[in-house]
Amino acid sequence: MTEPQHRTPEPTWNAWGTAEDAEPLPEHLRELLTEGLGVPRRDTPSVPRELVRVRESELTEVARSSLEDVVGAGNLHTDEHTRLLHTGGKSTPDLLRRRAGDAEGAPDAVVRPGDHEEVELVLRACARHRIAVVAFGGGTSVVGGVSPDRSALPVVVALDLARLDRLLELDTESGTATLQAGLRGPEAERLLRERGFSLGHFPQSFEYATIGGFAATRSSGQASAGYGRFDDMVLGLRVATPRGTISPGRAPASAAGPDLRQLFLGSEGAFGVVTEVTVRVRPAPTETRHEAWSFPDFATGTAALRKLTRTGSSPTVARLSDETETWLNLATSELGESAPSGGCLAVTVYEGTSEHVEARHSEVAELLRAAGGTSLGPEPAAAWDRGRFHAPYLRDALLDVNTLAETLETATTWSNLDRTYRAVHEALSGSLERQGTPPLVMCHVSHVYPTGASLYFTVACARGEDPVAQWRQAKRAASEAITSVGATITHHHAVGSDHREWMLEEVGELGLDVLRAVKEAVDPEGVLNPGKLIPPE
Amino acid sequence: MTEPQHRTPEPTWNAWGTAEDAEPLPEHLRELLTEGLGVPRRDTPSVPRELVRVRESELTEVARSSLEDVVGAGNLHTDEHTRLLHTGGKSTPDLLRRRAGDAEGAPDAVVRPGDHEEVELVLRACARHRIAVVAFGGGTSVVGGVSPDRSALPVVVALDLARLDRLLELDTESGTATLQAGLRGPEAERLLRERGFSLGHFPQSFEYATIGGFAATRSSGQASAGYGRFDDMVLGLRVATPRGTISPGRAPASAAGPDLRQLFLGSEGAFGVVTEVTVRVRPAPTETRHEAWSFPDFATGTAALRKLTRTGSSPTVARLSDETETWLNLATSELGESAPSGGCLAVTVYEGTSEHVEARHSEVAELLRAAGGTSLGPEPAAAWDRGRFHAPYLRDALLDVNTLAETLETATTWSNLDRTYRAVHEALSGSLERQGTPPLVMCHVSHVYPTGASLYFTVACARGEDPVAQWRQAKRAASEAITSVGATITHHHAVGSDHREWMLEEVGELGLDVLRAVKEAVDPEGVLNPGKLIPPE
Repeated sequence: MTEPQHRTPEPTWNAWGTAEDAEPLPEHLRELLTEGLGVPRRDTPSVPRELVRVRESELTEVARSSLEDVVGAGNLHTDEHTRLLHTGGKSTPDLLRRRAGDAEGAPDAVVRPGDHEEVELVLRACARHRIAVVAFGGGTSVVGGVSPDRSALPVVVALDLARLDRLLELDTESGTATLQAGLRGPEAERLLRERGFSLGHFPQSFEYATIGGFAATRSSGQASAGYGRFDDMVLGLRVATPRGTISPGRAPASAAGPDLRQLFLGSEGAFGVVTEVTVRVRPAPTETRHEAWSFPDFATGTAALRKLTRTGSSPTVARLSDETETWLNLATSELGESAPSGGCLAVTVYEGTSEHVEARHSEVAELLRAAGGTSLGPEPAAAWDRGRFHAPYLRDALLDVNTLAETLETATTWSNLDRTYRAVHEALSGSLERQGTPPLVMCHVSHVYPTGASLYFTVACARGEDPVAQWRQAKRAASEAITSVGATITHHHAVGSDHREWMLEEVGELGLDVLRAVKEAVDPEGVLNPGKLIPPE
Repeated sequence: MTEPQHRTPEPTWNAWGTAEDAEPLPEHLRELLTEGLGVPRRDTPSVPRELVRVRESELTEVARSSLEDVVGAGNLHTDEHTRLLHTGGKSTPDLLRRRAGDAEGAPDAVVRPGDHEEVELVLRACARHRIAVVAFGGGTSVVGGVSPDRSALPVVVALDLARLDRLLELDTESGTATLQAGLRGPEAERLLRERGFSLGHFPQSFEYATIGGFAATRSSGQASAGYGRFDDMVLGLRVATPRGTISPGRAPASAAGPDLRQLFLGSEGAFGVVTEVTVRVRPAPTETRHEAWSFPDFATGTAALRKLTRTGSSPTVARLSDETETWLNLATSELGESAPSGGCLAVTVYEGTSEHVEARHSEVAELLRAAGGTSLGPEPAAAWDRGRFHAPYLRDALLDVNTLAETLETATTWSNLDRTYRAVHEALSGSLERQGTPPLVMCHVSHVYPTGASLYFTVACARGEDPVAQWRQAKRAASEAITSVGATITHHHAVGSDHREWMLEEVGELGLDVLRAVKEAVDPEGVLNPGKLIPPE
């Protein structure tokens, strides 16, 4: 429809977001690390840019010429800096490697097609030349989803979708919008708000992640209680593959066989490249109301959230921190003396028309009070809202001061929630204690469903000698705990390379065969994001 | 958990439901047919049972012995009557063929396994012997989904799931139940109600259709506005295939790759046999409230429903008849003098706790009034509720009196709804007028979504010389209209054999390749419900 006017500034190569948004760790948190966690006070900065080792491009001249024929010479990049910016995602191991100067995984080229047809032609050219293709949106994967993998094919290009940045269609009567895959969260939201609508999808990666990435990874936003997961919002997809285009989704609901949308949602660039997504949109909210609550403990809080999901009257955001996360939040908040001590903090946000907000708020407040909650008024919830995209910057600041910090998540049914919480908590604590770096393990519930909820863990501890291996060990213990209690290996971070080996537990041998069969049908040369999603046979 | 005590009586071979529920057409309707539609007054009864031609069983002795080894001799049936009862579904063409004495399509045997393991062993045996397997639940398909097809394999068994009739687990904390596939609607609902819960899934086929069938066909119930489609309710499936078992679904939500549940939901027995379904259940409602509304015309009514879906405050049932259906409903109702004349009738039903019912009712009533509706009070809605499973019996009565009656359905976005309505209406009227049998075409909206709705058409006209061919021609015209306007070929009737050729339009050539690849992965011998869902290459 229109071309967006503003572009997000270029992200940095060794941290979340942009250099100008970075902030050093506040001194009181640094003290807390030293005194509370025993982290030795030591600076562990990134190596400077000039010391980073970026592998040489091995793109052949014939392949280059073939790709340039499709996108034009100006949209094929083999310079070191562009390739460095497409070397991987934003997991802590990704950042630790790059901060240590290791960008040996960099792709051999970065290709920027301008439309769906060019994406398809790039894929066909890559299939012909046996070049691996990593679809690259915001580059915010925290599971290795956009890291080049050369185990199957030696040359890799990053297919950057940044030029696919348009709102193609807005159907105000049906409440649907067709968005191109390269649109970042804020741009997509701005294009819709200018026309009176909102997508309502706000994952923590919102500032950089893209529409295509939301679809390819089954993203879930902070307002999922009110607006649903991204996969719930999708009416239709347009996906380019080396064997042509597939456009699943013709109606709001259908019984015309298996739902192929749900096969390409979550396919992480391994079945094709999502170029357009038709999503449900909503009238932009006219009113927002915040209210924070305190519960005596995590179990009482989760029971209250469970009851909430049964009423069909959810707030837009429903979120509950465990005792440790509550303690840290309050210890570091601006609330000062007015902060409650102990218990578990819950955040509720209501968006919509004023009638809707009032009706929902009064229903929910009554329920939460009856379920053991005490209202803390709007401010702690508003404070969460203001800072809700800030956590990844905080991680960068922690990595600078000898600290390892990372997150992981899962989901399970309500009856299995406490068991899962304890199993993962113990696995993380146990592994890191055994490694001599006892951690702070915090958790929150941020996505609730009638039948269960997500659990999102944040871990911080002293950085070990080899922090990548240190985290790998802790992550493995957590993943084993998750699968052993029957929870899902990921609620919204996706599979990438980091969760790949757990897919056998997740979908079984026959499930893997089905995934392999689909991949073979759309990508017989195996060029689409090799090494991700599906474990080798 | 427990064995259900009551079994549904055996359905009849040539009609919906059971013989004792059949009723002749009321005289005032018969007059209306003659006078209004010009249907010549003539009785067209079914042939008597003894004149029905059932093909001979061609099951080989070695295959019989192999199947008996799995299920026991008492659960393998080759008698003519049992095979007749598994000859096909309940579409009008199905019934017309059997009423004319044609049961040449009867399966060669009916196998009744007792549990999941036996189902899997039956499939393996059939793969070994190259015997086609039609999974058979309630036998209520109206799209040829359970009709034996011998184009690929000459011998066919019906795999009847009636013995898988248990509630395996009820997790009251998570609000989930695991139900075996052979449970019919009323039995499943009774098992849950005895424990204080409800599934809330009431398609028109409810009295006979099964849990496995709901899953395999993406069923949608009359209360979908409140409780969602069946595929929305599914947390997990257990599916037997000739290559083993697959059990997709580990959590309420997951980002662990493509959602394989959605690949087996709607797979219509072609990818495997669903043996267990874990579904979301709800506390049984304690209160029910009915209210009917009148809208000046169909467009005003659909606009009102559209607004309703945007509020997040739907009634449990929301349903709107067009002018013709309204006229017929009122002409045949018990309301007599108090019936309103003209306009379009809408039915709303609210279920839940009394607080929920009151809150929803007042929100919805206010909205419908503001959108141009006039309340007709509870009775017309309660009358609909009482008669809501009756329509298929009415069809049998119509078939007895020289009338052709059938239904078809689609779904599309709100902005495309009127265009679709007109296109299908004209296609049906045009085709049947050209055949010399001008029809009565009625329509209702019975499933609403924020982005669109279903359209359900009922057609009645004088029976032509060859009524199966007569309907085939009208159905083809309607299907062409549906695909040409971009709507889906089926909202909840599924694909079966009748919609198979429209799947190319629906999912594209590459979509068909993907479906074929999945089938090859789970069913390399091609024994699972051949000739359904996927058109031949």
